[in-house]
Amino acid sequence: MVIGVDLGGTNIAAGLLGEPDKHGTGKLLRKASVKTLPERGAEAVVADIAALCRRLLKDEGLPASALTHIGIGSPGSVIRETGTVFYASNLGFRQVPLRAMLGTYWPGVQVLLENDANAAALAEASVGGAKDRSSCVCVTLGTGVGGGIVLSGKLLTGFNGAAGEVGHHIVEANGHLCKCGMQGCWEAYASATGLVRMTREAVEKEPGSGLSELARERGAIDGRTAFDAAKSGDPAAQAVVDRYLLYVALGLVNLINILQPEAICIGGGIANEGPSLLDALRPLVAERVFQTDGTGTELVLATLGNDAGIIGAGLLA
Amino acid sequence: MVIGVDLGGTNIAAGLLGEPDKHGTGKLLRKASVKTLPERGAEAVVADIAALCRRLLKDEGLPASALTHIGIGSPGSVIRETGTVFYASNLGFRQVPLRAMLGTYWPGVQVLLENDANAAALAEASVGGAKDRSSCVCVTLGTGVGGGIVLSGKLLTGFNGAAGEVGHHIVEANGHLCKCGMQGCWEAYASATGLVRMTREAVEKEPGSGLSELARERGAIDGRTAFDAAKSGDPAAQAVVDRYLLYVALGLVNLINILQPEAICIGGGIANEGPSLLDALRPLVAERVFQTDGTGTELVLATLGNDAGIIGAGLLA
Repeated sequence: MVIGVDLGGTNIAAGLLGEPDKHGTGKLLRKASVKTLPERGAEAVVADIAALCRRLLKDEGLPASALTHIGIGSPGSVIRETGTVFYASNLGFRQVPLRAMLGTYWPGVQVLLENDANAAALAEASVGGAKDRSSCVCVTLGTGVGGGIVLSGKLLTGFNGAAGEVGHHIVEANGHLCKCGMQGCWEAYASATGLVRMTREAVEKEPGSGLSELARERGAIDGRTAFDAAKSGDPAAQAVVDRYLLYVALGLVNLINILQPEAICIGGGIANEGPSLLDALRPLVAERVFQTDGTGTELVLATLGNDAGIIGAGLLA
Repeated sequence: MVIGVDLGGTNIAAGLLGEPDKHGTGKLLRKASVKTLPERGAEAVVADIAALCRRLLKDEGLPASALTHIGIGSPGSVIRETGTVFYASNLGFRQVPLRAMLGTYWPGVQVLLENDANAAALAEASVGGAKDRSSCVCVTLGTGVGGGIVLSGKLLTGFNGAAGEVGHHIVEANGHLCKCGMQGCWEAYASATGLVRMTREAVEKEPGSGLSELARERGAIDGRTAFDAAKSGDPAAQAVVDRYLLYVALGLVNLINILQPEAICIGGGIANEGPSLLDALRPLVAERVFQTDGTGTELVLATLGNDAGIIGAGLLA
């Protein structure tokens, strides 16, 4: 039996995955979660991960000896070879040897570690929105822009384990400051945070627009405000959406011209816009990419939602 | 015996490569070239390739039966499976079945086809500037910006064969028009063409600068003008070089944050600046890339020069 753990800054979510031959790869049998409360330190967090695993097995009516692998997706940078979280700012972890620490609770169980965005990408590429594609780049348009590259079923981790930081490629040489410290990262434009900034700018510029009215009505601006006002036909909102989508498209074009994956799988809060998001992006991308024979990268939506991290961690086994 | 053919718009260059077990992989025993004159049509070009192969074997004192493989690097897009040049604008080739056509001259000889920039990248990654690295992106800073991605000794061609167009990723969303039709491609800034444009702008802006003086003295501006004037201490030239190098660095950062290759191998006319080019680029790149544990992608110079295309074509075998 395999347990996948999505170790987040807020929650530790874990899921028991069925044997591939009985339930299909990645099938989530049962899940559970607890608050991470990382300020308690790594020891307490690891103890909770170990206990979550025990609980999942027990609730499923399985003996502890049934567990063979624990896969963990962690934020930040990880050293796969040793199962160590090298640095994860939102956990406050520095050089935390998760494998060794879990080993004291679960001796004999193999512990595998991966970056959380990579784990989620592996899940979407294997059993989610991009399954059955030979290669895939997964892009998460959320508070930030995360990603992962899966080639022939394997994560591209790079020689130092840090590959796939697709949100931190520069699309605007002297552009907005990104929270990573660089200027003009794709994340600074294509994230929900980028969209909120563009929306706010438009609201300040045209206080009488339908967009501004909706923002006042709702009392706040978020990643849906511009999309919703645009659907009601407001031109100021449509201009924000157009500008945002163009930036999303430019980054997709860059990934395609460099990698030519069979699919790009788009998830995160912005992807809740659904198929209409892809319909709007497709022509913007198609007119800019290099193709050999008219065969272009397919844009697909992520399908696993918040379970992608758990399932992907489980798939590490 | 293997012959590598670098099919260019101006010249067809071919080389006889030694057996890996006797002379080391990629060792060039003998080479020869003829003018391409592509306006004669594909039939005449293929006849010349076939004749070049005969000549190489004869001059080396080998029977025609010694030839087992012909590898060809062609500009434009290729279909590897069928050995067809799909479209190469500077040859005027559209759907030219090179493998089948060469087969009438060399029955029984295996013909392999690859994009020329990819072939050159394979050579630099295998036996050139980036040999012994597990992964490498090769970047050619010439009239355009070409490239190729080699992971674990294999070219990343993408699901449709068109991957590795690193020059055509956007670094300036509303930037200069690239000859590919997009705005703000890396090529429009990091190519010698981009450098010449920046140099010309600086000359027009400050006609009294040392840079402008050198340009007048030489009667023309090329990719060396700004570098040479900067070496003489001219601040206007140094500003051009700094701006150019920053753009080169931004594209390298993008490739690193996405792919984290062990090395980036830089060739093309601009790379003739030598090690000082890399010394100037390294800090610009280092302060912008994501790293797990301080292990960063190495920047190296291409070492095979114009032979990279021939050797890489030969390595396809």
